[in-house]
Amino acid sequence: MALKSTSTSGLTLTRLMIRPTTSKYSMSGARHYSAPLDGTIPPAKQKYVPTSGTYPKGFLVSGTHVGVKPTNKSTPDLAFLASETPCAAAAVFTKNKFQAAPVTVSREMLKRRNNSDVRAVIINSGCANAVTGKGGLEDAENMGAEADRCFDPPTDGKGGSTIVMSTGVIGQRLVLEHVHVPNSLTLARLPIQKILRKIPSAFEALGTSHDHWLSTARAICTTDTFPKLVSRTFSLPSSPTIEYRMAGMTKGAGMIHPNMATLLGMIATDAPIAPNLLPSLLTNAVNKSFNSISIDGDTSTNDTVAVLANGAAGGKEITSESSDDYSIFQKTLTEFATDLAKLVVRDGEGATKFVTIRVTESPSEVGARKIASTIARSPLVKTALYGKDANWGRILCATGYSQISEPGMPINEVPEIVPEKTSVSFIPTDGSPELKLLVNGEPESVDEVRAAEILEHEDLEILVRLGGGKEEAVYWTCDYRYVFNSSEAQL
Amino acid sequence: MALKSTSTSGLTLTRLMIRPTTSKYSMSGARHYSAPLDGTIPPAKQKYVPTSGTYPKGFLVSGTHVGVKPTNKSTPDLAFLASETPCAAAAVFTKNKFQAAPVTVSREMLKRRNNSDVRAVIINSGCANAVTGKGGLEDAENMGAEADRCFDPPTDGKGGSTIVMSTGVIGQRLVLEHVHVPNSLTLARLPIQKILRKIPSAFEALGTSHDHWLSTARAICTTDTFPKLVSRTFSLPSSPTIEYRMAGMTKGAGMIHPNMATLLGMIATDAPIAPNLLPSLLTNAVNKSFNSISIDGDTSTNDTVAVLANGAAGGKEITSESSDDYSIFQKTLTEFATDLAKLVVRDGEGATKFVTIRVTESPSEVGARKIASTIARSPLVKTALYGKDANWGRILCATGYSQISEPGMPINEVPEIVPEKTSVSFIPTDGSPELKLLVNGEPESVDEVRAAEILEHEDLEILVRLGGGKEEAVYWTCDYRYVFNSSEAQL
Repeated sequence: MALKSTSTSGLTLTRLMIRPTTSKYSMSGARHYSAPLDGTIPPAKQKYVPTSGTYPKGFLVSGTHVGVKPTNKSTPDLAFLASETPCAAAAVFTKNKFQAAPVTVSREMLKRRNNSDVRAVIINSGCANAVTGKGGLEDAENMGAEADRCFDPPTDGKGGSTIVMSTGVIGQRLVLEHVHVPNSLTLARLPIQKILRKIPSAFEALGTSHDHWLSTARAICTTDTFPKLVSRTFSLPSSPTIEYRMAGMTKGAGMIHPNMATLLGMIATDAPIAPNLLPSLLTNAVNKSFNSISIDGDTSTNDTVAVLANGAAGGKEITSESSDDYSIFQKTLTEFATDLAKLVVRDGEGATKFVTIRVTESPSEVGARKIASTIARSPLVKTALYGKDANWGRILCATGYSQISEPGMPINEVPEIVPEKTSVSFIPTDGSPELKLLVNGEPESVDEVRAAEILEHEDLEILVRLGGGKEEAVYWTCDYRYVFNSSEAQL
Repeated sequence: MALKSTSTSGLTLTRLMIRPTTSKYSMSGARHYSAPLDGTIPPAKQKYVPTSGTYPKGFLVSGTHVGVKPTNKSTPDLAFLASETPCAAAAVFTKNKFQAAPVTVSREMLKRRNNSDVRAVIINSGCANAVTGKGGLEDAENMGAEADRCFDPPTDGKGGSTIVMSTGVIGQRLVLEHVHVPNSLTLARLPIQKILRKIPSAFEALGTSHDHWLSTARAICTTDTFPKLVSRTFSLPSSPTIEYRMAGMTKGAGMIHPNMATLLGMIATDAPIAPNLLPSLLTNAVNKSFNSISIDGDTSTNDTVAVLANGAAGGKEITSESSDDYSIFQKTLTEFATDLAKLVVRDGEGATKFVTIRVTESPSEVGARKIASTIARSPLVKTALYGKDANWGRILCATGYSQISEPGMPINEVPEIVPEKTSVSFIPTDGSPELKLLVNGEPESVDEVRAAEILEHEDLEILVRLGGGKEEAVYWTCDYRYVFNSSEAQL
């Protein structure tokens, strides 16, 4: 099989000389697909795993087993996404001061390429390649370079064109648990040779079928209980007859498990977007989606969400922020990212509830967001939700401390919160009327039976009206499972 | 018994005409003392409950059963502290925007009296009197006024002289769970008549014995598993022959329990302190003690810590911030408040570990505090500690995101954190050498056996060296109990 074309390119990468059919690029082993199908997905989560999808033109994907963790004997742990043509691409990265090697490498690559001419994404799970020093940076660079080698070599002098991501345990502990050798530093890094050796077969395995996408989504999982894959079609005003497609995957973010939870996301679309517009489109979308969810409140060293647009569906390229196409695409991307982000919340470890926190009537969007975030992160709110307790006092309490200062600092002014204007309601997800708990700072006479009915459902919206403006913000969160005492927990 | 003196006073309150002996002011029922002694204290916590104490002169206390919660048939839930002579007093209150009625009433009283001539503290547990509107304010005022009536009426025209605190469930849900009536708003308030009726007998029951103090500490508890009482003696340079005393109590702060956790603290000393100095002495002490602990990260509507100084032990009044006496008293008060605050952490619900987070070598104290606070609150760190997992990656991760901005905001500069200068160690509490996990950003070859040994102990210190300055901050936190999956939890 010809992995490289014989043609040469100018400033852009040449076309990938493989045909996007599934038959030619089948996976090398059936087990790679079996993880989502072998019954390990909890029954309550199976409804979130799609059985079909509409995938963007010109993108090929594969999920391959490497065995990054020595204990992993068959589950795919290497995800490869490739585009037949160079893409506009953008990514948002963790703001954690300790950034993993792949974050540094990918950020620099996108900067060097001005968000243009990106060809692939390569992701391993099982090891985060974080806090791994210079060796870790080399590992991440080598992963990208090995993926690059599957394509025609770029001749634009801008180096690699692959986004690299890793997720798993930070530092060396993963390997140390299994192998005892004198110098752990050599083990702190990725088992990079194993990964590099498998990249060519991952490339061979690329395909476009739903099973390919599902296997790839599976390969980026760590503590996730189900693969998180979403696809959709959309159209743009300037080309109403073209069906554009968007597909993406994500992984979370489990509270409580002893492994590190990292949030990764990858979105591909065949719509044509000017590279210089993609970063702000993605940032806007992520702020209202991946940055508006809370599982455990921790921000990882590896968090990365990337978008690639290859324009393979044709039509007019979006080149202006003031165009209708831009607005529609922004809306589409934000909704899509939100759908993905919500799946992460659905998979919060031990979670039984999916809770929307909506803060409205705020003088500022920033204030509303801070309040929504604080409620979403409050352990007391989250444990009350697990206990199906209509405890609006805890919601109010979290609202009230959401903008307080650090100890020793002057107290914030907090213009957003006026106790006697604040109202709290439960909004049922079945369309029935809201249940008012607090109205303008005064407790309502709560129908406890009705409250219990609403809290029986998996989904719930908590609405906080601040009564002081027109801005709003939304967060999505889950409950915290807890144990009452040790005799019940049997731990 | 003469509850009021026949003498009149000038600008200060008259002396309380009761003698500070325990025999005369015995409690009216033995059950009031029984809660800490009847075996309900978990065996592992019994070592934190003192069997004797050295209590400050001129202070009398009692814990009385009211039955604020209808289900409480015998446990003391009304705490009364009185001083024979008017006190200098100060308090720090929650910064939560939704402040409970007793917070408002006590704050105004202390302001009106310029921190002088305070006579008593009255505290109920079982209902927080928070988010209770004007009615709740009246209730809190009436509680204070009823306590005031036990003393000679003040003639200084400054109104009441009693600090009021409440702790329990916010709003109306507590009572609604037990009594169903059409209009819950009338039930949202304290069962104030029950409390007011008992205040005279609480006054009659005042005494100075260790049992009195322990019963009073018991009366302020809610979800606490043991009463938190500390006492000590100290001396001041200007009066080396005088033995001063300090006693105090606190209550927490349980993660996970469906009731509201409020932090209250009350400290009494017989040292003579000028009223104008007491607020800053207390604020400094609280910032390094009660504001440096984290159980669940939530800041309640009722949090209050008060200090009263009656000068009954004699000696020279502390009137200057630049005196040696001031420095020594500040140090004493801070250490004492720290001892109290640590007891709250010891009682974190489900907690198995007591963890000191020390962040050193920081360019700023504020930065060190923010980092320590973030590590102490990280659910991933707390669950790793529960799992006895030497997961320094999570510690580093929390360090790295401790100063990140809200979504959509520009990223902070965070001068405190330089990855390649950051080191993380476990400091064993048995005096054995530290276990280095990360040195200048490079992972150490960790002796897993040694790490496991250290993590077996209840107490542990996590030391983060930032390598960039000389400031430091300390936080105390506990672990989070968690369940691996539902079959283990049997929930």
